[in-house]
Amino acid sequence: MKGLWLENQQLHLRTDIPTPSPPSGEVCVRVLRAGICNTDLELLRGYYPYKGVLGHEFVGLVENGPEHLINKRVVGEINASCGYCRFCRTGQPTHCENRTVLGIVNRHGAFADYLTLPVTNLHPIPDSITTDAATFTEPVAAALEIQEQLSITPNERVLVVGDGKLGQLVAQTLALTGCELLVIGRHREKLALLEARGIKTGLSEAVSDRAFDIAVECTGNPEGFSLARRALRPRGTLVLKSTYAGNLTLDASSLVVDEITVMGSRCGPFPKAIELLAAGKIDVEGLIDGRYPLSEGKEAFEAAQRKGVLKILLEMS
Amino acid sequence: MKGLWLENQQLHLRTDIPTPSPPSGEVCVRVLRAGICNTDLELLRGYYPYKGVLGHEFVGLVENGPEHLINKRVVGEINASCGYCRFCRTGQPTHCENRTVLGIVNRHGAFADYLTLPVTNLHPIPDSITTDAATFTEPVAAALEIQEQLSITPNERVLVVGDGKLGQLVAQTLALTGCELLVIGRHREKLALLEARGIKTGLSEAVSDRAFDIAVECTGNPEGFSLARRALRPRGTLVLKSTYAGNLTLDASSLVVDEITVMGSRCGPFPKAIELLAAGKIDVEGLIDGRYPLSEGKEAFEAAQRKGVLKILLEMS
Ligand SMILES: [Zn+2]
Ligand SMILES: [Zn+2]
Repeated sequence: MKGLWLENQQLHLRTDIPTPSPPSGEVCVRVLRAGICNTDLELLRGYYPYKGVLGHEFVGLVENGPEHLINKRVVGEINASCGYCRFCRTGQPTHCENRTVLGIVNRHGAFADYLTLPVTNLHPIPDSITTDAATFTEPVAAALEIQEQLSITPNERVLVVGDGKLGQLVAQTLALTGCELLVIGRHREKLALLEARGIKTGLSEAVSDRAFDIAVECTGNPEGFSLARRALRPRGTLVLKSTYAGNLTLDASSLVVDEITVMGSRCGPFPKAIELLAAGKIDVEGLIDGRYPLSEGKEAFEAAQRKGVLKILLEMS
Repeated sequence: MKGLWLENQQLHLRTDIPTPSPPSGEVCVRVLRAGICNTDLELLRGYYPYKGVLGHEFVGLVENGPEHLINKRVVGEINASCGYCRFCRTGQPTHCENRTVLGIVNRHGAFADYLTLPVTNLHPIPDSITTDAATFTEPVAAALEIQEQLSITPNERVLVVGDGKLGQLVAQTLALTGCELLVIGRHREKLALLEARGIKTGLSEAVSDRAFDIAVECTGNPEGFSLARRALRPRGTLVLKSTYAGNLTLDASSLVVDEITVMGSRCGPFPKAIELLAAGKIDVEGLIDGRYPLSEGKEAFEAAQRKGVLKILLEMS
């Protein structure tokens, strides 16, 4: 089968990848569409070691498998857990000690004709969600993880730093809580997408010091962290939603003096993401900036790396 | 009056300091005993700008003041708040925007014959608490702040990194929750103090990776942070109880991947600290490593700076 293969920070379009046969408990999925995420770009830059097929945001079709999935469009949770370690046994499979992660850790990913995942990872997609929109299930779920970790009420003043792919979805999901929301970005046309949905936006100058209860960092750069930090009131919470290239240097004493909480946040609940997409509560179509066939995967990555570009989709056969 | 005066990273024993007269709402307190804290040593090293009388851990006597305090031994909360800012109005006076802090920010401290504090900051000390023990009220309260921020149950595995003054009190207060506790230090005689109270201790090699629900960093050095970090399970909480000289560099991506929470923790509840001291539930006498009259304040600071020394007390006239 065809697939986009990462090896030594080089992306290769290969046509000689063996079509996977699912081990027991897993299902083979024919990929229909997949999205390029910042993590894919970071893997390409060599921030984490990984060799194999890239990609983890996808919609696919189950051609062979259990009754309830057959001929259905599905999305898939990306962490394949062992089921028996202490995290699996305590209901935290995304933190499984022995996990593989689709297109990220020891498991071939979604930028290929086929992938396999455990049956339990797959969620059928209702007809009301387009294949384009369903491709966003994983990042919408990741955005919703913040609300799994923190209870956010309409009284809360929340800052989102970053207007990229992640910031857009984080902002849209947070807006649903009714909180007092402000999104800071550098790109007027991206901020305009949020404004069009009634979300308040601004440039970094618009942020008052020590004014927010919660600040969500969605840029992955130290300037974004520092803006989020200074925006927080004492006893506020800084949510780290982005991974960072290399280390982050911060003033730990000020975290102590102001009793700030810094909270890492990763994968989230797929069922809730599907529910919101089905209800049309999240606009994802507006975030699509390009589509490429899998055979033009390298061009797709070039587009995804361009400044200011939001989501690039890959379309399989 | 006499006092230990800090100016340009130099400590001076001055005898010409005017005895303070309390402004409206404040009380003049004759200091009986005071403790040297790591924050004092950091102020001396110039980590924060401050000029004036040092010291914030004290017991004093109210010679003139309101009925309920007169001729009573008192301890005092160190943050003097404005009463009208948004933090004061929402019950967080320790984070008051306009606060002065005894011997730390814009308010002369306790290493002197007299100090003044707002009436509302003062707590009378019951006869059952010795003057020595009462000197520890402020650091015991600070240790208890962890339990104000996090609910700690007997099921929790908690690591304390550091066997110094702060680590000792943090460990003793945490032990009262019945949690599964381990204290890591570098000084066998300090760890022995904890062992004598039935608290499990060890050297850093004793710490298993990813095994603890909560890790409390009490060393203020990057190695301590890194030990606390690696000891945490995914979704664990790292409590920062120490201030740090300069910046701390950390792997922020791993905080995201493991969904770690880092929580700064500072001043705590005086009434609870007094209650525990009165009930004899915290041993503080064992932490006293020396006593000096105020007139030998500079020698006291030399002693406090020696490696392995726990609490040094200053005794006023
Ligand atoms: Zn597992
Ligand atoms: Zn105030």
